[in-house]
Amino acid sequence: MRQVYREELNAISEGLVEMANLVGSLIGLATTALLDADLQLAETVISADRRVDERQRNLEGRAIAVLARQQPVATDLRIVVTSLRMSADLERSGDLAQHVAKLARMRYPQRAVPRDLRRTVLEMGQLAQRLMAQAAEVIITGDVKAALQLEQDDDRMDELHRAVFQHLMDEQWQHGVETAVDVTLVGRYYERFADHAVSVAQRVVYLVTGERADELPPDI
Amino acid sequence: MRQVYREELNAISEGLVEMANLVGSLIGLATTALLDADLQLAETVISADRRVDERQRNLEGRAIAVLARQQPVATDLRIVVTSLRMSADLERSGDLAQHVAKLARMRYPQRAVPRDLRRTVLEMGQLAQRLMAQAAEVIITGDVKAALQLEQDDDRMDELHRAVFQHLMDEQWQHGVETAVDVTLVGRYYERFADHAVSVAQRVVYLVTGERADELPPDI
Repeated sequence: MRQVYREELNAISEGLVEMANLVGSLIGLATTALLDADLQLAETVISADRRVDERQRNLEGRAIAVLARQQPVATDLRIVVTSLRMSADLERSGDLAQHVAKLARMRYPQRAVPRDLRRTVLEMGQLAQRLMAQAAEVIITGDVKAALQLEQDDDRMDELHRAVFQHLMDEQWQHGVETAVDVTLVGRYYERFADHAVSVAQRVVYLVTGERADELPPDI
Repeated sequence: MRQVYREELNAISEGLVEMANLVGSLIGLATTALLDADLQLAETVISADRRVDERQRNLEGRAIAVLARQQPVATDLRIVVTSLRMSADLERSGDLAQHVAKLARMRYPQRAVPRDLRRTVLEMGQLAQRLMAQAAEVIITGDVKAALQLEQDDDRMDELHRAVFQHLMDEQWQHGVETAVDVTLVGRYYERFADHAVSVAQRVVYLVTGERADELPPDI
């Protein structure tokens, strides 16, 4: 019985890692679709979101089954409840990747992002993907330091987000209001995606230490 | 023992209703702060978000305590797990009200929303507040029809959101890029707030019927 139980908890954890890897890949593909105005790639991301949703439902079902059958307490209970929250973060991240892809599709064959912002948006996309890969790693390793590092790496996303806004507010902006609206939304999608990756890592910290990341002393 | 258990479940449910009422009020205040450039009101909303977060932590703690002590199964287990998700929706709604208020503060003493969009944004704010009040009602009553009605009422939010975009894309737009960016974000905050209200109601439907709202036949 105990053996089966452990296996179920491991399967949930593996499911979360797979889901994080999936949404990390999707934000990468969505970024390429956006910057290259690649309609086919955009469609791929948009339709793949259904798979993300299925995985979330599947994970939720497993977590609830463990609660019902095994009635975990203490740490195990925390693991299961935290898994539910992580799967919600990852599901939402998939939505955000889909939003980026939908914007690419909406503007096709034009490109939604003007040339002078391509580099910034590319870095946002790559960073979003990397943060999610780090979050997946943190789920596997339970490494609190790596989780807190991820939070620091997210500062770069905030910098990039601010840079996008500064560029928009620049009087030299020549791309009109429609593009400004597109770029505003894109910036927000990436920033929120990164927030969810950070959130996943913070939940691991909470599992490992029993404390929320923002309550930990800064030197840990 | 059973009696205490029922009381705990009721307390969680009441906590959710209070939280929904709180964030509903906050989005209302934030809207006034935004449209009237009322700095004091904006500060009130911004600082009140901490109370929303505290309530969420409190509710989560209670829910986890029920899982650990009472080890609920079947319907009761679903109630507790669903409560966790609802409290996350409501916490996020509080963040969105805070975002609206922060925008009001950032542009003070100017108004972030130009005159010709005030009426639309006012309706978005009022609708957001009403949808959240309906969600609170649905938590109390468990009324599936009212929950599905709420989803239909949310269609109006989508209409308003589209109207904002159309206005932005209009060649007559004279308010510059900064205001376009502000209005884009405001529109998205209200739309997301409404989505969370709908999500809360859908979770009640799931509790009552055991089915997700999108799987129900349309005539229910």
